[in-house]
Amino acid sequence: MKKILNSVESLLEESLNGFAKAHQDIIQFNHQPHFIRRKDSSPKPKVALISGGGSGHEPLHTGLVGVGMLDAACPGHVFTSPTPDQMIAAAESVENGAGVLFIVKNYAGDVMNFEIAGEMLDCPYDTILVSDDVSLPKDHSTGRRGVAGTVIVEKIVGAAAEAGASLAECKVLGDRVNNATATMGVALTSCTVPALGKPTFDIGHNEMEMGVGIHGERGREPMELSNASEIVEHLVAAIDVDLQPKQGQKVLLHVNGFGATPLMELYLVFELAETLLKDKGVDVVRSLVGNYTTSLDMAGCSVTLTLLDEQLIALWDAPVHTANLRWGC
Amino acid sequence: MKKILNSVESLLEESLNGFAKAHQDIIQFNHQPHFIRRKDSSPKPKVALISGGGSGHEPLHTGLVGVGMLDAACPGHVFTSPTPDQMIAAAESVENGAGVLFIVKNYAGDVMNFEIAGEMLDCPYDTILVSDDVSLPKDHSTGRRGVAGTVIVEKIVGAAAEAGASLAECKVLGDRVNNATATMGVALTSCTVPALGKPTFDIGHNEMEMGVGIHGERGREPMELSNASEIVEHLVAAIDVDLQPKQGQKVLLHVNGFGATPLMELYLVFELAETLLKDKGVDVVRSLVGNYTTSLDMAGCSVTLTLLDEQLIALWDAPVHTANLRWGC
Repeated sequence: MKKILNSVESLLEESLNGFAKAHQDIIQFNHQPHFIRRKDSSPKPKVALISGGGSGHEPLHTGLVGVGMLDAACPGHVFTSPTPDQMIAAAESVENGAGVLFIVKNYAGDVMNFEIAGEMLDCPYDTILVSDDVSLPKDHSTGRRGVAGTVIVEKIVGAAAEAGASLAECKVLGDRVNNATATMGVALTSCTVPALGKPTFDIGHNEMEMGVGIHGERGREPMELSNASEIVEHLVAAIDVDLQPKQGQKVLLHVNGFGATPLMELYLVFELAETLLKDKGVDVVRSLVGNYTTSLDMAGCSVTLTLLDEQLIALWDAPVHTANLRWGC
Repeated sequence: MKKILNSVESLLEESLNGFAKAHQDIIQFNHQPHFIRRKDSSPKPKVALISGGGSGHEPLHTGLVGVGMLDAACPGHVFTSPTPDQMIAAAESVENGAGVLFIVKNYAGDVMNFEIAGEMLDCPYDTILVSDDVSLPKDHSTGRRGVAGTVIVEKIVGAAAEAGASLAECKVLGDRVNNATATMGVALTSCTVPALGKPTFDIGHNEMEMGVGIHGERGREPMELSNASEIVEHLVAAIDVDLQPKQGQKVLLHVNGFGATPLMELYLVFELAETLLKDKGVDVVRSLVGNYTTSLDMAGCSVTLTLLDEQLIALWDAPVHTANLRWGC
């Protein structure tokens, strides 16, 4: 394992310390228990958006805390759910009279811990489960996983909360965005979890893992490594079957790198996906290309599509000021 | 070689097409010859800042074209200098009465080609050579290489040009920032150039390359892989010797990932570097952490320090709107 670290045990704390120093103008780091919160509270009651999950997916979620997006994020150890005490402490810190909305990627540990935390809160709360990964069937026993579409849910609901939407409105909106969002990923290499010290899965020199999860879960099928056009056709086809965008449908196209894939390749994927969509009559009106929901040092990427309407476009465009997503302010 | 691509020959063009589509609100892609330019010209005469170099370092330089930074960028093939015709065409496209300033990383091919281009221009022009890599001695035969400090030079000079500074003022400022900036990098793995199809250099399982260049040039010395604290001490010491910041000196600390290093590790490096600097009485007042000057899929990072004064802080803070660096607008 080749990583820049002092020890597996100290990595998260040291890294969060650095994150907090680098972005001290906008966020604060609570040490015990761990959470990152917005530095300045909203002056008026505002739904408090809280997310979290295992570390190793940065900038998700800590890098998305700030004005117009999350109020707090609870980082667990690498690929490990945060614990209810983190979520409760974060909620108590940022709740300011309009209730708490948890945005949770659909993994058993995260779901259970956010549920426990919610039951302990003495304020109104609700939960959005993100489940955008179409590599699993809709009727999968534990439901579909939440992957790169999480960023889109957090951005759009974040803008609505900032604009004064109620807890109930944010909940309805978040579910709507989740249902309008589909993601499919492919890995060329495995990631290496520091505590494990070796790649999570074996993959041949001439193989790729189609439908991989963001923790290096094996995908739908290992396939022979093909060229970019064939890879992107596969990704877009899986999304298309699921989301069935209509002719003239406006969409957001998000190409997400898993950590070790150069921007040149991500923009190539964007080009190929946009061309395929245009050929189907789908209109890419917004885009996001880069490493947002990573899987440590995994090579590969995912393609995410969100069906947009004028309300969602306006919320996507609204100002945001976080460590790793920023525009309009 | 595991990469998402159709062919080595088509990669650059296809990738730039995707980049241009994803950021069509702010940039335009000129196909023959290749350059990326700001979409909207400045309404009043403004020094035209043009940079460029081999591709594979994205977001440098194409991702830094926009308001408050570059007017145009000329991308060569991977790790290959762009040609004078690109620079001339870019200059003719964006020059609007206040002259052209080339910002050039100090590599023989880039320097030569920008020089040829400059001689062909029929407008006033000047050149800033960026040479921030302290892994080579100051009196190295071809001078020091330009690496991650280039982003800082481009940001600060970009803000000055946007504010109406003259060509002569931008030139003096750029040289001053370059002289106030020092970078040292370390690689844990090699990168793989698509056209070569195999890693640029061999590196042992327990080795790192201290003082590596951004094209995977071998560094000062291969060293045994050590822990993060020792790595960062090494990087900061090399910068410290060169830049000799005084007690109380305000600095910008930039931790740059080479492409395959997770943000968690980059923030760990930031934490360790900031702590070392604070112990020396150096005051980190601005920061930039992320993948800005990459080396394709190389694992590793560089640390860059720029000595700041109030003028440079104000220029750093000035609004910028590019594909990959954006704030204040």
